[in-house]
Amino acid sequence: MSDFDRVEVIDNGAALRLLREDGSDLRFHAIWLRDNALDPATRSPGNGQRLITIGEIPAATRIESAVLDAANRLTVTFAPENKTVDFRLAWLNALAYDRTPAMEAGWLPESCETWDGGFATRLPQLDFTRAKQDPQALANWLAAVRRFGFAIMTGGPVESGALLEVAALFGFVRETNYGRWFEVKSEIAPSNLAYTSLGLQAHSDNPYRDPVPTMQLLYCLENTAEGGESFVVDGFRAVQRLRQENPDGFALLSRHCARFEYAGTSDTHLRSRKPIIELAPDGELVGVRFNNRSMAAVTDVPYEAMPAYYAAYRHLATIVDDPAMAASFKLEPGASFLVDNTRVLHGRKGFSGSGSRWLQGCYPDKDGLLSTLAVLQNNGRRIAAE
Amino acid sequence: MSDFDRVEVIDNGAALRLLREDGSDLRFHAIWLRDNALDPATRSPGNGQRLITIGEIPAATRIESAVLDAANRLTVTFAPENKTVDFRLAWLNALAYDRTPAMEAGWLPESCETWDGGFATRLPQLDFTRAKQDPQALANWLAAVRRFGFAIMTGGPVESGALLEVAALFGFVRETNYGRWFEVKSEIAPSNLAYTSLGLQAHSDNPYRDPVPTMQLLYCLENTAEGGESFVVDGFRAVQRLRQENPDGFALLSRHCARFEYAGTSDTHLRSRKPIIELAPDGELVGVRFNNRSMAAVTDVPYEAMPAYYAAYRHLATIVDDPAMAASFKLEPGASFLVDNTRVLHGRKGFSGSGSRWLQGCYPDKDGLLSTLAVLQNNGRRIAAE
Repeated sequence: MSDFDRVEVIDNGAALRLLREDGSDLRFHAIWLRDNALDPATRSPGNGQRLITIGEIPAATRIESAVLDAANRLTVTFAPENKTVDFRLAWLNALAYDRTPAMEAGWLPESCETWDGGFATRLPQLDFTRAKQDPQALANWLAAVRRFGFAIMTGGPVESGALLEVAALFGFVRETNYGRWFEVKSEIAPSNLAYTSLGLQAHSDNPYRDPVPTMQLLYCLENTAEGGESFVVDGFRAVQRLRQENPDGFALLSRHCARFEYAGTSDTHLRSRKPIIELAPDGELVGVRFNNRSMAAVTDVPYEAMPAYYAAYRHLATIVDDPAMAASFKLEPGASFLVDNTRVLHGRKGFSGSGSRWLQGCYPDKDGLLSTLAVLQNNGRRIAAE
Repeated sequence: MSDFDRVEVIDNGAALRLLREDGSDLRFHAIWLRDNALDPATRSPGNGQRLITIGEIPAATRIESAVLDAANRLTVTFAPENKTVDFRLAWLNALAYDRTPAMEAGWLPESCETWDGGFATRLPQLDFTRAKQDPQALANWLAAVRRFGFAIMTGGPVESGALLEVAALFGFVRETNYGRWFEVKSEIAPSNLAYTSLGLQAHSDNPYRDPVPTMQLLYCLENTAEGGESFVVDGFRAVQRLRQENPDGFALLSRHCARFEYAGTSDTHLRSRKPIIELAPDGELVGVRFNNRSMAAVTDVPYEAMPAYYAAYRHLATIVDDPAMAASFKLEPGASFLVDNTRVLHGRKGFSGSGSRWLQGCYPDKDGLLSTLAVLQNNGRRIAAE
């Protein structure tokens, strides 16, 4: 709704008010408009970057005049610079910050949809060959990863290292002490319990890393063992349930840092200090860290709060372990799954028998994935260019 | 101080109290002790990972008995498991969580020391050849990076790609849309203002990435242009000054998210929503994002708070631009500097003349650096093994 039909300068030029015929309005401050101006002296027309610093904008900036024309263009003249800039109303409307509602701690953006075990019947899937040939199909698959934190890719080559071809469809892989990619097989003297045939509780990977790997890709090369099914749990749904069932517990796990640690080989000693439930300063739920194997001694919770903290952690674990939360599947060779490791927990059942189970894993970056998605969705044009 | 001489079980077995002769004490809860037990059924002796989940520990866990012996060993028997575990007093003392003081928002750990422009006279430096040969010298250099967020490496090869040899001394490089490394030279149609001869205000790199690159290495190959000096500003010191001079402004920049964006090429559109001043949930100052070029329109600040938010941002910029804050230096070919990009801002003066200025940059990961430092300092033994 950008059908404004009037503008007025308010607060002695400190702001302006756009008015609709129905009486509703939207306000913008002089300093915000000036700082976000899109004229070529303020933003580089080539790359969209801002060419001036905040210090180059006079502190006394105010709106000298504001005019709205029939082409949905707002023309503003700023004093003391005596600088005139045009703004498009649709652009202003999209960036409106007036009257944004206060949100409850643990809120999620609309682009995110949480799920429980019923998700197993509708796991997003795409064939690898189609992903390479059909940008729209790839965009839909990436959008599913953004929405659900999880998707499966089928029909890839059954050869070592093929996971990098999947990652290259959308972004870049983060190299770590485990290499650019790593083998997930049973080992005799495992440096990590992932390299055994034990079942693994649903967990997020590498919470001892800071920043935590944002995504994990697990690619199947052999899977004839008995058992070894994979399952995933939406950590955001688990946290939402905790908040509903135990609001104080939710608050405790988000307000205090846990500790995570890994020193499984002699050349590595990784440690982090991060909360199990991570919120943005305004309460957006932005991350879940959950890993019984690498949680270290928690030392940042006051003595009086420790019993309730542990009760909340136990409560969250009960939710994570609830079979109703888990979406299970078994990967065929050439298939892989991608999880948002800041959100979705993954686990596996134990395996045995004469068959084998061989996966390879790597950590692609989520920001690169979201960038590719934005470009594919033809939103690649920067806002500055609109 | 682990000279405890007595232990008593308190709160019906929910906790125990260690007492010193002087009457001071330290308490630990039954559930904390049980969860952090280091016996081989709880933690893998091979890799230190926890073998049990929180759900496998009875919710009704309490301390049945606790005995302190002359060898500084505490032996605890837990009910209802009837499980007996030994704890070393020094280990308990190091992990004490009883009576941890409440900290003021913006606190820093002791391992971090802030600085201003006077730092220019004592910039940590190490010769590349020595770094390769002397683990203690390398450890000291890495410890300086942890403490100050900055160090210089001199005497490296003057050849393209040599920066990766420096990064390989301590960790792993994060590949991005800019490549594993990137060129910093003047270009005719720059995709980024870094690739011009313009001066650049002190800034952190790539705040539009989430997670932000944790470190940046900038390596000099040619530097005969007039000007082009590098300088760095301790963003943590700048934030401390802001907190002192303008506490409300400090709160505003830490409690609301800014927005950052980059779409300088047609295949990339990166966006993030993060605060300029990032605090841990308990107020530790953990990050500063400051980049006039890529800050997008801020839309997560309530209308009423926007003028004060902008005033605080301007105030922080004034501190960042204060010449007394900047440590300047000029890199010779073969020299490089490493900055903690979550903390230290870097900038350059404009350059001109007939000479040339050619740098290469990359983004190594800080967690890998800290891991290498821990191993070199012989702290590589996991706490579990102590």
